Amino acid sequence: MSAPTDPQDEPTATSSGMSRRAVLGLGGGLAAAGVVAGFGLGRATAPAPAVASTAAGTYPFTGAHQAGIVTPAQDRLYLAAFDLTTTSRDELVELLRRWTTIAARLTQGLSAGPFGPASGPYDAPPDDTGEAADLPPAGLTITFGFGRSMFVGTPGPDGTPGEDRFGLADRLPDGLVELPHFAADDLDPARSDGDLVVQACADDPQVAVHAIRNLSRAAFGTATIRWTQLGYGRTSSTSTAQKTPRNLFGFKDGTANVKAEESDALEEHVWVPATDTEASSAWLAGGSYLVARRIRMRIETWDRTSLREQENLVGRTKGEGAPLSGGTEFTEPDFAKEGRDGAPLIAVDSHVRLAHPSTHDGARMLRRGYNFTDGNDSLGRLDAGLFFLAFVRDPRTHYIPVQSMLSRDDVLMEYLTHTGSGLFAVPPGVPDGALVTGEDGTPVTTEKSPFVGQQLFA
Amino acid sequence: MSAPTDPQDEPTATSSGMSRRAVLGLGGGLAAAGVVAGFGLGRATAPAPAVASTAAGTYPFTGAHQAGIVTPAQDRLYLAAFDLTTTSRDELVELLRRWTTIAARLTQGLSAGPFGPASGPYDAPPDDTGEAADLPPAGLTITFGFGRSMFVGTPGPDGTPGEDRFGLADRLPDGLVELPHFAADDLDPARSDGDLVVQACADDPQVAVHAIRNLSRAAFGTATIRWTQLGYGRTSSTSTAQKTPRNLFGFKDGTANVKAEESDALEEHVWVPATDTEASSAWLAGGSYLVARRIRMRIETWDRTSLREQENLVGRTKGEGAPLSGGTEFTEPDFAKEGRDGAPLIAVDSHVRLAHPSTHDGARMLRRGYNFTDGNDSLGRLDAGLFFLAFVRDPRTHYIPVQSMLSRDDVLMEYLTHTGSGLFAVPPGVPDGALVTGEDGTPVTTEKSPFVGQQLFA
Repeated sequence: MSAPTDPQDEPTATSSGMSRRAVLGLGGGLAAAGVVAGFGLGRATAPAPAVASTAAGTYPFTGAHQAGIVTPAQDRLYLAAFDLTTTSRDELVELLRRWTTIAARLTQGLSAGPFGPASGPYDAPPDDTGEAADLPPAGLTITFGFGRSMFVGTPGPDGTPGEDRFGLADRLPDGLVELPHFAADDLDPARSDGDLVVQACADDPQVAVHAIRNLSRAAFGTATIRWTQLGYGRTSSTSTAQKTPRNLFGFKDGTANVKAEESDALEEHVWVPATDTEASSAWLAGGSYLVARRIRMRIETWDRTSLREQENLVGRTKGEGAPLSGGTEFTEPDFAKEGRDGAPLIAVDSHVRLAHPSTHDGARMLRRGYNFTDGNDSLGRLDAGLFFLAFVRDPRTHYIPVQSMLSRDDVLMEYLTHTGSGLFAVPPGVPDGALVTGEDGTPVTTEKSPFVGQQLFA
Repeated sequence: MSAPTDPQDEPTATSSGMSRRAVLGLGGGLAAAGVVAGFGLGRATAPAPAVASTAAGTYPFTGAHQAGIVTPAQDRLYLAAFDLTTTSRDELVELLRRWTTIAARLTQGLSAGPFGPASGPYDAPPDDTGEAADLPPAGLTITFGFGRSMFVGTPGPDGTPGEDRFGLADRLPDGLVELPHFAADDLDPARSDGDLVVQACADDPQVAVHAIRNLSRAAFGTATIRWTQLGYGRTSSTSTAQKTPRNLFGFKDGTANVKAEESDALEEHVWVPATDTEASSAWLAGGSYLVARRIRMRIETWDRTSLREQENLVGRTKGEGAPLSGGTEFTEPDFAKEGRDGAPLIAVDSHVRLAHPSTHDGARMLRRGYNFTDGNDSLGRLDAGLFFLAFVRDPRTHYIPVQSMLSRDDVLMEYLTHTGSGLFAVPPGVPDGALVTGEDGTPVTTEKSPFVGQQLFA
């Protein structure tokens, strides 16, 4: 680590010099203690396992896929969509380089920059904003995605086409479509879309917010936050080792989720395949698509419905989450099974039936949503619900048909309004061993630093 | 526990009957396992210690003071202010009885009502909304307070006096004043004031939100949410055993906080004394006042200032939090100490000097604030900052003079705007052993149930 500017000639030097120089918990200390190994500096290191957590609560940043997809869903989320304010392709690339380096550092428990929040040149802003300085890495993952507008701009209200600001229009992947209007949509443009998206997940919300804040800071002059979403409770499990959590309807959610352990299902439903190198989406091989939907729930109305109605709408029991056709949580629903009155035990318009893969040619999603509560409206009703996040191989086959049917026929929709929406192409990961590191062995940004989405600009 | 309605004659009975009857983790199960002991059912039980946490992560609900004040500050907060929609004193009392019972239950890891989220009569809404059914109590505390408007109504814009809806005007405690306008105030009425306040603190945000939601549900027809605030990171320690956390300036906050272990300081600075039984505030003896201030920070501007300026504005080092006069975090600042240039090492307009008790006749507060991030503004700047919470014996001596000086002279105010404000009288606790319990030994609401603030209505 370079020596910080000597502050001895300054009035406050004797009192504050020491601590500015001290190696903080968030600074070089962890690197010296061996965390650097997590970066896979040697080309010979084994590929990071898809699901792994070290004792220090860190997940590898590098790998074939970005972290934060099959990673066991952390408890908290902070997600930000950004709009690019630059029209320079070079500046966009530089931003992605900086972001990649910062994400590689933060996810390994390092500060955003080498000097950390409280050392380094005394007359410059600190490298890191500092509010996570005493917190553990908390399983932080940072996942980047690209919106359609980054490729083709935003169409005008009169239908005039958007602008290809970065020379990327011919690389627009086929699946990065404009989502159609769904029946229950009441979308707020200020909570929708964006050129870029950053998903930060951690078991400590302050760690997730700190990550987004420092990335936003690094984007100053190049990109600006368009919207953000805080999620406080995960509503999906992405590993068979995780207990199924509950959404704000009080029901277990995502029982049939694609899990990290299902490698065949991941290939079939989550990762973009590398089958066609001529295709505009070839650069996306090994990546995925992220569908983000802010779904407000009519909490107060729901809370006044009977247990019978709630269970019939969902198609599962509220306590255990078993299908109403019988069994336990992970028993497959039997949609044909009838009760004594000859009606199906699981109603034909219930959520579990209409959302089930068997209703959609087997299409499944890797869901990674969170509960949110964003204050209240003027009537005192909570602005709360489910921030739906799903990673899919192709939204045209794995999301749009499902949501089209749900928004039209699902009786649960009476209690739901979609108020925000985003669709993003999620590039593959930065390969193990590719990061450029500085003298202290931690990632730095140079002209040779790899970055997330590099294949798109090749 | 009474038997739930037999669902065997219902179409979905065979599949869902079992789980509705099953004793859920959030339901009677914990009670049966001994949690009931926490209610101090026998009059002979020893008073709950001011600071205590059981292995199950619960704090006693009953005691001389309400929990959630000297309780070691939990990691997360959800706070809601309510406006009463009733003008009936009886309905207000009934609400407080219901709230007290629900709070006594939830804080001990029980569901909001005896049947829990998924048992009980099938054609009635469940007793509990269910989203915390599988979560531990997470150290939940629920603390109630009364706003000035509950006593004297809200003055009209033309200065016409408010209405004494509940016959409480002559019990308005002297300290429950209208806060003056402070220099940095830009208060949003939709984020300020309220007839009632409920502070829910827990180590899991979903547990805190669940508590407010179920209390709000129990208030239907009597009170409605006026505003809420989610806080994700505590910014104060209330026990010497807790590490000092960091605010969004990246600095340790609340180093000089009144701590639970300082019993003399609690009497002097936090608890309303029982010295004058004739006074309008006699009912408040053993209670406190809660000052709530939503303080937005100019995050992006702060992040572009130098480390030197940040430290000089605060008057402490960013790394360790030591005063710029030297020493370590808990060294008392030496405001007289000068540097080589003859200027004080701690600037005369620094935050630490202007907020220090020695600047305010020794007045101290028990601070219990949280970091918040509520999305962003139209320029992409985070709407983030400090949700300041402080418990004081009298806001006229312990808050107003301090904030008057800070808002006028503190150089840090350049980076701060107060956007919301509330002042509430916080009644003493429900005495140990006073709760009424039902057949299963858990608290129930009857006409004899005690309630928080009962002294006010005596």
